Amino acid sequence: MAWFRTLTRMSATAKSWPPPLLPSPLRTVPTAPVASASLLLTSLRNFSTGTAASPAVEDRPPPHLSQSPTHCGDLGPTEGGEKPRVVVLGSGWAGCRLMKGIDTSIYDVVCVSPRNHMVFTPLLASTCVGTLEFRSVAEPVGRIQPAISREPGSYFFLSNCKGIDAKNHRVICETVTDGPNTPDPWKFNISYDKLVIALGAEALTFGIHGVKEHAIFLREVHHAQEIRRRLLLNLMLSDVPGTTEQEKSRLLHCVVVGGGPTGVEFSGELSDFIMRDVRQRHAHVKDYIRVTLIEANEILSSFDDRLRRYATRQLTKSGVHLVRGIVKDVEPDKIVLDNGTEVPYGLLVWSTGVGPSSLVKSLDLPKAPGGRIGIDEWLRVANVPDVYAIGDCSGFVESTGKPVLPALAQVSAKQTIASNLEFFALALQFWLPHSQLVIFWIEQVAERQGKYLAGLLNRIGKAGGGRANSGAEVDLGDPFVYKHLGSMATLGRYKALVDLRQSKEGKGISLAGFLSWFIWRSAYLTRVISWRNRFYVAVNWLTTMVFGRDISRI
Amino acid sequence: MAWFRTLTRMSATAKSWPPPLLPSPLRTVPTAPVASASLLLTSLRNFSTGTAASPAVEDRPPPHLSQSPTHCGDLGPTEGGEKPRVVVLGSGWAGCRLMKGIDTSIYDVVCVSPRNHMVFTPLLASTCVGTLEFRSVAEPVGRIQPAISREPGSYFFLSNCKGIDAKNHRVICETVTDGPNTPDPWKFNISYDKLVIALGAEALTFGIHGVKEHAIFLREVHHAQEIRRRLLLNLMLSDVPGTTEQEKSRLLHCVVVGGGPTGVEFSGELSDFIMRDVRQRHAHVKDYIRVTLIEANEILSSFDDRLRRYATRQLTKSGVHLVRGIVKDVEPDKIVLDNGTEVPYGLLVWSTGVGPSSLVKSLDLPKAPGGRIGIDEWLRVANVPDVYAIGDCSGFVESTGKPVLPALAQVSAKQTIASNLEFFALALQFWLPHSQLVIFWIEQVAERQGKYLAGLLNRIGKAGGGRANSGAEVDLGDPFVYKHLGSMATLGRYKALVDLRQSKEGKGISLAGFLSWFIWRSAYLTRVISWRNRFYVAVNWLTTMVFGRDISRI
Repeated sequence: MAWFRTLTRMSATAKSWPPPLLPSPLRTVPTAPVASASLLLTSLRNFSTGTAASPAVEDRPPPHLSQSPTHCGDLGPTEGGEKPRVVVLGSGWAGCRLMKGIDTSIYDVVCVSPRNHMVFTPLLASTCVGTLEFRSVAEPVGRIQPAISREPGSYFFLSNCKGIDAKNHRVICETVTDGPNTPDPWKFNISYDKLVIALGAEALTFGIHGVKEHAIFLREVHHAQEIRRRLLLNLMLSDVPGTTEQEKSRLLHCVVVGGGPTGVEFSGELSDFIMRDVRQRHAHVKDYIRVTLIEANEILSSFDDRLRRYATRQLTKSGVHLVRGIVKDVEPDKIVLDNGTEVPYGLLVWSTGVGPSSLVKSLDLPKAPGGRIGIDEWLRVANVPDVYAIGDCSGFVESTGKPVLPALAQVSAKQTIASNLEFFALALQFWLPHSQLVIFWIEQVAERQGKYLAGLLNRIGKAGGGRANSGAEVDLGDPFVYKHLGSMATLGRYKALVDLRQSKEGKGISLAGFLSWFIWRSAYLTRVISWRNRFYVAVNWLTTMVFGRDISRI
Repeated sequence: MAWFRTLTRMSATAKSWPPPLLPSPLRTVPTAPVASASLLLTSLRNFSTGTAASPAVEDRPPPHLSQSPTHCGDLGPTEGGEKPRVVVLGSGWAGCRLMKGIDTSIYDVVCVSPRNHMVFTPLLASTCVGTLEFRSVAEPVGRIQPAISREPGSYFFLSNCKGIDAKNHRVICETVTDGPNTPDPWKFNISYDKLVIALGAEALTFGIHGVKEHAIFLREVHHAQEIRRRLLLNLMLSDVPGTTEQEKSRLLHCVVVGGGPTGVEFSGELSDFIMRDVRQRHAHVKDYIRVTLIEANEILSSFDDRLRRYATRQLTKSGVHLVRGIVKDVEPDKIVLDNGTEVPYGLLVWSTGVGPSSLVKSLDLPKAPGGRIGIDEWLRVANVPDVYAIGDCSGFVESTGKPVLPALAQVSAKQTIASNLEFFALALQFWLPHSQLVIFWIEQVAERQGKYLAGLLNRIGKAGGGRANSGAEVDLGDPFVYKHLGSMATLGRYKALVDLRQSKEGKGISLAGFLSWFIWRSAYLTRVISWRNRFYVAVNWLTTMVFGRDISRI
């Protein structure tokens, strides 16, 4: 009972809280009671007052921590002995691809984002119905760029960007909070040598009343979680005595607004879920559940006519009602179309494309047509030194003579760039385990920009231009070129579309059906960034095939 | 473009919302526009008014639905043509094991619970730190007893029990709600032929101020999710500029109150997470994170001295501070012990055992000592016909001469019953894939009671006593007997305890170390109910071993 003697002695001696601050938690504590007690008392000062809000807070780090960075409210400008600092705002496709490519022997990387992971957006629709696990589609930033969790000068800050002070090379940030028992948010500044804005875009609501309050978007993992919870809640509530027939029909009416790839994929997944799982697991209400897809124009407008007809046929066959209409108003339990039709719903998913976020709009930076941050052909924000912008938040300024970017808002996550050969190569590579083919990566525009900019920054850094206000004389090399080579969308039930033409009118391969689905899965399986997630996605798909989808509402 | 013509015509003709109610969502819709439009108009009435709250609601089901159950607010008494109805309150170990064993050719089963899955509680601690996925420890009720999702008279109701009207053989329930866009809760009654109360227990707070507000329990999946979110938030916030040394130490101080198996297992998992993952993935703050386990008496009091010493040594070695103390008060950022010591914390997990819930206390039923529902040796609630109680909510009435139940509250989820031989048999069976050994199941008292009662009810039903107020003359057979054969607890880092003695002073095998850990994993792996979850747990464990734990905060 030696340990109890130790503890009794400890709690009798020490009135204030005594555990050693550092580094004993991770090493063996001596077993002799006296030695242990004296060790425990060494770092008392750090806990003498209890709360952080107390006036007796000591800001000066204890001597053994002096090698760690200062924590005085700001991350100041880098100095001679330090590496230049690249600050990346956002952890989406563009920002993460950039961080992956940054040479961390040249730069320190600081990432600011309200989420600590990248979301593999094309697979998000599958998580709503339990085909995939939420964790399979999220890749932690610290795994994408390990230096962020290891290098003393590299950080990930769970914070929102609140503004950019380009004149002083600073970013203003505010921490994220989460409920009543977590610390209040506080503001801090980060000085940058190079700044990369990769803040992404926001879902468009076209100013329609009630969309933000009642509809769910499909852009983050928590959206998918909310859709899943709502769907399962409605399935179960509609089974409870006291639900009228009409209420049951309403609860189980899933409405998707927007016929782009996200809307189509979600509708396809949902109808597949209904056909395969709801029929078995919710037999009492299976005849009430319906999916309606509302689109103002044509569904999948970026695909060719033949593929679009195929998609229409497949979706209709699997029970998705396709409706052409414009939403005028969204109420808690129904939407109103412009022709006056009222559509009661239990679940409303909104995916009508994306536009610049209010933060991007508010930034005092040059803008491209459409309100995005204006960039030149080297992805530099026009006339603002050391600031770059990539991904959905950026667009080419008119002086470049380029289109803002090819159909970025509409199908950003679905845009893929790869030669026809590559598609088949990777399909073979993944499904035939011993194939010796090289992995080809399919990339979308945001990824391409991230990769290009990482190379550009590395080039500047190697030439000694990594510091703030330097590097103007470095040869930047070739400008960024984007070549659209294809689009993909899945329709559920082992069906998908693959469109490998250069443009809507151009020539090339366009496929529909099982082979496309096979390519779609393969393509995405090789793109989920880590092997861990690739493995999880494969396991999830396998389990869903064998056991059906998960229906626990957790 | 045939489908657009169809749709245009449809929306032009029909001002009210037209999709067919049944069963076209799941079959091919005719492609000819006219046929389609006329089909679409058939069930207009059901949507003519839009909202459920509207006065024009039609409660009468349409003719084609007349074979489905009535939905008039209550589930009335069963009639001649129907099977007798067993109503089960709760979806924990006891209730789920009972439902699994009920013969659904004799009875209809109705389960009432606020969650649609059983939680595999012994593995919950592992999900907090990402060793296991949340979904791996949840088993949907509809998979445990498939009749619930298929049979016309069997149901799962996502609702809370609000009271029992034993005189009229009725249960009063209220639906669960979830946020502003979900239906308001409503009440309904369910008539039963046999009622099984398996409502479980509630975490004990001993009336200590602030526990409910600031501490997190570890009994449900959402508790584990909250712990995980808080832990990752604190890890990230403590890295942000502006955090003082003291605040950092507070944020990263994880305090566990209660040294029973749950508290010990969670502490072990947490220190393992710190040693294996935080060091690598949160290198900047790794020296600040600490785990303290506070217990008023002895840790793992149900295990023998040798095992307890072993556990103490292992926990201390892996950095867990063991403190003997009594908590007097819980504030948002610190706890106060009875000797006046203040312990600042960033995460507080409370696991000081369980007691009867307020609902159980409020029920007008005979009680056993300690406030549980009083049962006799056949698990019948004393003097209340057709009502049974099992699991943590029940205890033997004094007249039975039995102890309330063996250390149920303290180690309920950890109690295991199996012969020594069985342990090794199943260990071998699981880890040696081609072993031909039979699977033996390890069961705890709640499971044992569920299994026993399923057999008893089946016996009564077969003898024709399944209806309300009948079956009094049926021979009930042997009473329920519980034989305690062992306890298990894991300590993290491939270490565990297995105690196979009959009582604390008795003889038997007690093991500690790697072999125990191996047995612990094996035992739990074979107990996670479905093959799907067994497969997932194995995959999760494998992935954690290879890739480390997941750190995305989703």
